[in-house]
Amino acid sequence: MRGTDIQSGKAAATLAALATPALLLDRDRLDRNLARLSSRMAARGVVLRPHMKTGKSIDVARRVYRSVPGPITVSTLAEAEYFAQHGFRDMTYAVGLAPHTSDRAMRLQKAGIDIKVLLDSPEQAAMLGAAGRAAGVTPSALVEIDCDGHRGGLTATDPKLVVVAAAMAEAGVKIAGVLTHAGESYGLSTPAALVAAAESERAVAVAAAMTLRAAGHECRVVSVGSTPTAHFADDLTGVTEMRAGVYMFFDLVMHGVGVCTTDDIAISVLATVIGKKPEKGWILVDAGWMALSRDRGTAAQPADQGYGLVCDVAGKVFPDLIVSQASQEHGILAVRPGSAHALPDLPIGAKVRILPNHACATAAQHELYNVVSSDSAAIEARWPRMRGW
Amino acid sequence: MRGTDIQSGKAAATLAALATPALLLDRDRLDRNLARLSSRMAARGVVLRPHMKTGKSIDVARRVYRSVPGPITVSTLAEAEYFAQHGFRDMTYAVGLAPHTSDRAMRLQKAGIDIKVLLDSPEQAAMLGAAGRAAGVTPSALVEIDCDGHRGGLTATDPKLVVVAAAMAEAGVKIAGVLTHAGESYGLSTPAALVAAAESERAVAVAAAMTLRAAGHECRVVSVGSTPTAHFADDLTGVTEMRAGVYMFFDLVMHGVGVCTTDDIAISVLATVIGKKPEKGWILVDAGWMALSRDRGTAAQPADQGYGLVCDVAGKVFPDLIVSQASQEHGILAVRPGSAHALPDLPIGAKVRILPNHACATAAQHELYNVVSSDSAAIEARWPRMRGW
Repeated sequence: MRGTDIQSGKAAATLAALATPALLLDRDRLDRNLARLSSRMAARGVVLRPHMKTGKSIDVARRVYRSVPGPITVSTLAEAEYFAQHGFRDMTYAVGLAPHTSDRAMRLQKAGIDIKVLLDSPEQAAMLGAAGRAAGVTPSALVEIDCDGHRGGLTATDPKLVVVAAAMAEAGVKIAGVLTHAGESYGLSTPAALVAAAESERAVAVAAAMTLRAAGHECRVVSVGSTPTAHFADDLTGVTEMRAGVYMFFDLVMHGVGVCTTDDIAISVLATVIGKKPEKGWILVDAGWMALSRDRGTAAQPADQGYGLVCDVAGKVFPDLIVSQASQEHGILAVRPGSAHALPDLPIGAKVRILPNHACATAAQHELYNVVSSDSAAIEARWPRMRGW
Repeated sequence: MRGTDIQSGKAAATLAALATPALLLDRDRLDRNLARLSSRMAARGVVLRPHMKTGKSIDVARRVYRSVPGPITVSTLAEAEYFAQHGFRDMTYAVGLAPHTSDRAMRLQKAGIDIKVLLDSPEQAAMLGAAGRAAGVTPSALVEIDCDGHRGGLTATDPKLVVVAAAMAEAGVKIAGVLTHAGESYGLSTPAALVAAAESERAVAVAAAMTLRAAGHECRVVSVGSTPTAHFADDLTGVTEMRAGVYMFFDLVMHGVGVCTTDDIAISVLATVIGKKPEKGWILVDAGWMALSRDRGTAAQPADQGYGLVCDVAGKVFPDLIVSQASQEHGILAVRPGSAHALPDLPIGAKVRILPNHACATAAQHELYNVVSSDSAAIEARWPRMRGW
C-alpha cells in the first residue's frame, strides 16, 4: 500500500479538479516541520522517536526517515503491525497494556520487532511476563510515569514504582526504562509556562529513572515528550529520547499554544461552497464534521477557531473567517464575532482550504492525503492512511 | 462487501475474545428502533425515506428493507454509488449541490438511478441543468426549505423561492418538490417543544410546496425530517415523506432530547480497562476519541455524559459512570460530579461497553459493526461500513 504517483493514475491532478471534501498535505511544510524538531533534538543529543499516530502513513514516515527506518512510537498495535510490514523494527507502543495487547505485542516481538510496551501495575507486569513466556520471548517494558496528573502512570515518588519494577523482574520482564508524557502542556500558552512544563517533564522522568536504578534496575531509556514540550525543552540532561507526533502537521491547537504559526500547518481540508445565507453572514460548504472531525480543541483557547480557520484555495488565510458550525456534511463559514473583516464574496462552487483544530483527529476522518507543494496547485501524490486497532 | 457470518470466519466469536476497542451493534435494538418509526409513519400514510448516513452499511440497510430495496436518503455521493451497487434505485442526496456533485449525480441518473438532488439558488439550477444536458438526462431536484434557521435553504415566504423554481424550469430541471430538515429540534428536550417543532417543520414545508404549486409547478414531494420530529410529529397532513437516520441506532444526545431510553441505544464501543488511578477516582480504558469520536453533543444538555455512558460488558448501565476525558487512545472513566455512586471495582483487563453521544460520529470511527443480540455474548456477524465521499 504505497502512495500513488498521480502521473501514473487517473486521479484529479489539480486542486481545481479534486472532488471535495478532501484532505490536503503540504509536503514542503511537512518537511520543514520535520527538520525543525529533528535538528532541535540533534543539537541536544537526544533521539527523536516520532509518534506515528498523527500521520498513520508509511509515506509520511518515509519523509521522516528518508533512507533507513528508525525508532518510532505507535498508538495502536495495528500501527505497530503496519509499520513492521514496512520495515520498521524499533517501536514503542505508548498505551497501557491489556491482556489481548500483551499477547499481540509478543507475537510482534517473536517476529523480530523490538517492541517496548507500557505498564504501571504489578498485574500488567505479570500478564506481560506470561505473554512473553507463551511466545518464547523476553518482553521489554517501560514504566509509565505521571509528570503532570494528565492521565496514567505513577508519580516519581510513588512507593509503588519499585513494587512495579520488582514485579517486572519477578515476571521476567526487562525494565527498558521509564516513559512520561506532558499532556497538560496542551493547555498552556506562554513560552515561560512551556519551558517550565518541559523542565518538569524532564525532571520527573529522570527522578523516576534514578529511583529504579537505585533499586538495582538498569532503566536505560528515559523517554519524554509532547509536541509543546519537545519544542520548548532547553536542557534535556538525563533524557535519552523525545516523542512527538502532531509536530509533523501542526494544527490550530498548537498554534494557540504558541508552538507554530498558521503557515506551519501542513494539512487542510479542501471544501466547496454549496450555499449562501447573506442575511445571516453565512457561507455553506461541503465539509462538515465528517471531514473536519468533531474536535473543538481551540474552544478553550483565547482564539476559538470554531471547527477550523478558512483559507483561500492557495492557502492564504481569510482573516477571522472560521467554520462556526458543523453538521455531518455541512460546514457554516462565518466571520468571527467582533471581527471588523467582511465575509468574502465566494460563489457557489468556489473552493477553500480549512485548517484543522487538531491534525490527528481531522486526518483520521480521511482515507488518504492529497499531497501538494506550497507553491503549486498540482496534486503530486496520494498517500493512503491506515486505521483501526 | 457483504457482512461476514462469524461461523464461516476466523474472527472472535464472543465479546470476551474480541480485541478492543470495537464497535458493537445490538441487532435486537436496531430492529426494534426500525419497527417503531416504520409503524409510526405507516399509521400516518407517510413514506419513510431512511437516511443511510448513520449506518453507512448495506447490512444495516437490509434490516430496514428485508426484501426489496426502498427509498433512501444519502449524505454523500459515495453513499449513493455504494447503495446503487447494492440495488437501491430511489435516493435523495440531501446536501446542497456543487459543480462536481452535479456531474457525478447525473452519471448515476444516467445509470438508471432515480436520484433527487438539493438546491436553493438559481446558480445551482443552471449548473444542474448543464450537467443534465451533458449527461443526456433530465435532472430532478428538491428545493431546500429552511424551517428553523438551522442551516441552508429558503424560507417558505422568501420571494426567491419562485425565482429558483423558475430558474429550474428554465434550466430543464424537474422540480420534484421541497425538502426541509428541523435540525434545531436536536436542541429541544420537552415533548411539547418537539411536537411544536414537528408541526412547524410540516407547516413550513407544506406552505413552500403550495407557493410553488400556485406558481404552476408540480412539486410532488413534500419531504421533512429529523429523528426528533419524526418521533413527535402527530399530524403530517400534506407531507409525503419523512427522513430520519440516527433513529436506527439512537444515542445519548437523542436520549437527552427525550426520543429514546438508554435501553434503545443499539451501538456501543467495547473497551478494556488498562489502568487505574484510585486516588483520582479514575479507571483508564483503551477507548479514546479515536474509538468514541470527539463528539460532545451532550455537553449542552442537562445530563452531560462526557464522551459516553459506561455499561458492563452485558450492556447494563453503571449509574453515573461516564468517560470524563478522552485522548486519542485513552478514555478516563469517572463517576459524574455530584453522584452518590461509587466507582465500580474493575480490574485490569475487564471489559465495558460505552454508549455514544452521537451514533453517526462514533460509528464513523470504525470499519465494521460487531453484531450481537441483546441476550447473548456471541458475535453473530461483522458488517462492514463504507466511508469517504
